[in-house]
Amino acid sequence: MPRVVMKFGGTSMAGIERIRHVASLVAKQAAESETCVVVSAMAGETDRLVQFCKEAAAEHDPREYDVVVASGEQVTAGLLAMTLQNSGLDARSFMGWQLVKASGVHGNARVDGIDSSELDDALSNGTVSVIPGFQGATPDGRVATLGRGGSDTSAVAIAAGLKADRCDIYTDVDGVYTTDPRIDPNASKLDRIGAEEMLELAGSGAKVLQVRSVGLAMREGMTLMVRSAFEDVPGSEIISNWDETMERTAISGIAADRNEALVKLIAEDRPGRLAAALHALADEGLTVDMVAQASDSLHFTVPRTALDRALKALDKAKDKIGHTAIKSDNEVAKISVVGVGVRSDPALAAKVYDVLADRQVPLLAATLSELKASALVPESHVDVAVRALHAAFGLGGE
Amino acid sequence: MPRVVMKFGGTSMAGIERIRHVASLVAKQAAESETCVVVSAMAGETDRLVQFCKEAAAEHDPREYDVVVASGEQVTAGLLAMTLQNSGLDARSFMGWQLVKASGVHGNARVDGIDSSELDDALSNGTVSVIPGFQGATPDGRVATLGRGGSDTSAVAIAAGLKADRCDIYTDVDGVYTTDPRIDPNASKLDRIGAEEMLELAGSGAKVLQVRSVGLAMREGMTLMVRSAFEDVPGSEIISNWDETMERTAISGIAADRNEALVKLIAEDRPGRLAAALHALADEGLTVDMVAQASDSLHFTVPRTALDRALKALDKAKDKIGHTAIKSDNEVAKISVVGVGVRSDPALAAKVYDVLADRQVPLLAATLSELKASALVPESHVDVAVRALHAAFGLGGE
Repeated sequence: MPRVVMKFGGTSMAGIERIRHVASLVAKQAAESETCVVVSAMAGETDRLVQFCKEAAAEHDPREYDVVVASGEQVTAGLLAMTLQNSGLDARSFMGWQLVKASGVHGNARVDGIDSSELDDALSNGTVSVIPGFQGATPDGRVATLGRGGSDTSAVAIAAGLKADRCDIYTDVDGVYTTDPRIDPNASKLDRIGAEEMLELAGSGAKVLQVRSVGLAMREGMTLMVRSAFEDVPGSEIISNWDETMERTAISGIAADRNEALVKLIAEDRPGRLAAALHALADEGLTVDMVAQASDSLHFTVPRTALDRALKALDKAKDKIGHTAIKSDNEVAKISVVGVGVRSDPALAAKVYDVLADRQVPLLAATLSELKASALVPESHVDVAVRALHAAFGLGGE
Repeated sequence: MPRVVMKFGGTSMAGIERIRHVASLVAKQAAESETCVVVSAMAGETDRLVQFCKEAAAEHDPREYDVVVASGEQVTAGLLAMTLQNSGLDARSFMGWQLVKASGVHGNARVDGIDSSELDDALSNGTVSVIPGFQGATPDGRVATLGRGGSDTSAVAIAAGLKADRCDIYTDVDGVYTTDPRIDPNASKLDRIGAEEMLELAGSGAKVLQVRSVGLAMREGMTLMVRSAFEDVPGSEIISNWDETMERTAISGIAADRNEALVKLIAEDRPGRLAAALHALADEGLTVDMVAQASDSLHFTVPRTALDRALKALDKAKDKIGHTAIKSDNEVAKISVVGVGVRSDPALAAKVYDVLADRQVPLLAATLSELKASALVPESHVDVAVRALHAAFGLGGE
């Protein structure tokens, strides 16, 4: 019998009526496979818990944060298990700490592996197994969460640990689109996309999947299916092992990421300037995205939500970095054109910046990587830029 | 340094403002002792979670119920730990599954022991340790809850496991009263009460403490202090090892329990009739309270909240019990007069039924035990009966 992991997001789990609907989808699946279900907390619940933490202490111990916020998925896992039982299925929940080995930074831990023996037994006996996403336990027995959206990563890690045949991510959109349909109504759904491109899209602001889940799927050679929990329509396949004989679209899609802030350090160029800045941020668990160096300044972007922490960290390391001033701008956004064509056809990358120049969109920073051409632009110009690029690359479908 | 366990109920933990107040009480205590804190979920939270379970499935797997409802204390434990840290204390939370070994019926499990080594280390190092009440883990790794009010039992079990010098139960009342002040405004606070009498009072509807916590304290020879989390006034001591030289009040208090339902089985008296009925109920985890046998019928009370389950269980075992009909009445209540005097002075017990007869309170059933004289009366007569007994036994204080 095939083995399938299904993952349901917070919108699908928001309230008993929806959980009942999820149970009906699981029951259908369980008729033809060994079935393991990974669930998110009810939509809004994690925000409620995060708010409690903020009120309790502005700067709180991430280990305690994890204890608090991990409770939401525990609730939905138990509720789904009992709903499945109520519809006549053999089902049970497991706890994240029983199965998922995690380590690293609390609040953003990584999955080291799955302790799958008990779960294996349950599945082999035909028991539908329900697991709270987003969490695991560290070697010293503390609960650790995997970052917002971490249930996707839980699902992929569990699918890999169980050697599942499929991992289906049920969500409130029905697939991966060429761009955000709220920005451009011409956006069209992709039947399939390479995991590498999906990784870049997700990393560039397309919110379908947590970035790390796609990276993990790629490393594990696992194909994901993103599909709607509400409508019975085909989803989008995210393919890790792309058959070289299959034709691959040159440009897969365009993402806009508004969670960006630009930081400018006014600092003489000297050896170790960039390294010192990156170390200072890394010590706080912060990552940097676009980087540009000039002789008298250093520019880079950080997640907008982390700007305050970044500025504090940089200020603390002032002596090491050697800057005389810091400026920041958080009304910026990153637009990324993603596809294998960026790598194979330099003209495609050039076209990105041509289109933006044509529309007089100010270009604050630009980066080019294997699969992605990105532009940092004022947030006010995002919509016009995305629509122009979407049309220029002919992504609107037939 | 002495070692103290503090337990805070749901009203004390309802929201960040109150958690901050709890943190201030803990900080004061931690200045003079090794301190371990056991917490309930925010008031209302467990009800919310129970409601989810009911909506998910009318008859749900108690193991899944436990997974869902145990989450509330996890949240408050994390929040209190971070609040304590924020006020400069060295603090951390533990999880119930890390420390509390439980077994028996899910939803109403018992505590088998405490795995206290890690907790011991933390306390010895001066770390205030916060533990979610109400829960533990079974040997096969499932979360198990200890029944409503189970955080009291957690606190006592942990205090015993840690060989604590004191176990203080902070609650929304400031002590143990001679009767419910909402029924009789003349109710007066007891400075101290024997654990045996408290056990009977708690078992008879006085809601200050979970019954099992008192039984456990008694077996462990641990004195409890019940006191207000909101007002800095003396509480009531619950004394397990009563010094024989101390004078003990003959009658400690009067309790009224409205969670009662009367079941009448119409059944010929034959050997094993009562045993068969009790077995049928025990199989469902249900306990019976007052029992009366007659030649053609068997009467007993069950918790009102469990009446439906009891009637179903009895119906299923009809052939074994041999009854021809079942009748039930859930508008009844049990009034209990509690004190060592019941044992030592038969006239005191007689006085109970005299007072009720005087006031023309119908007596549906009566039981007399070592420390308690109880009467089952129509619920409509509770208030008048309690006030009459409270006055007759001179419990109104000076």
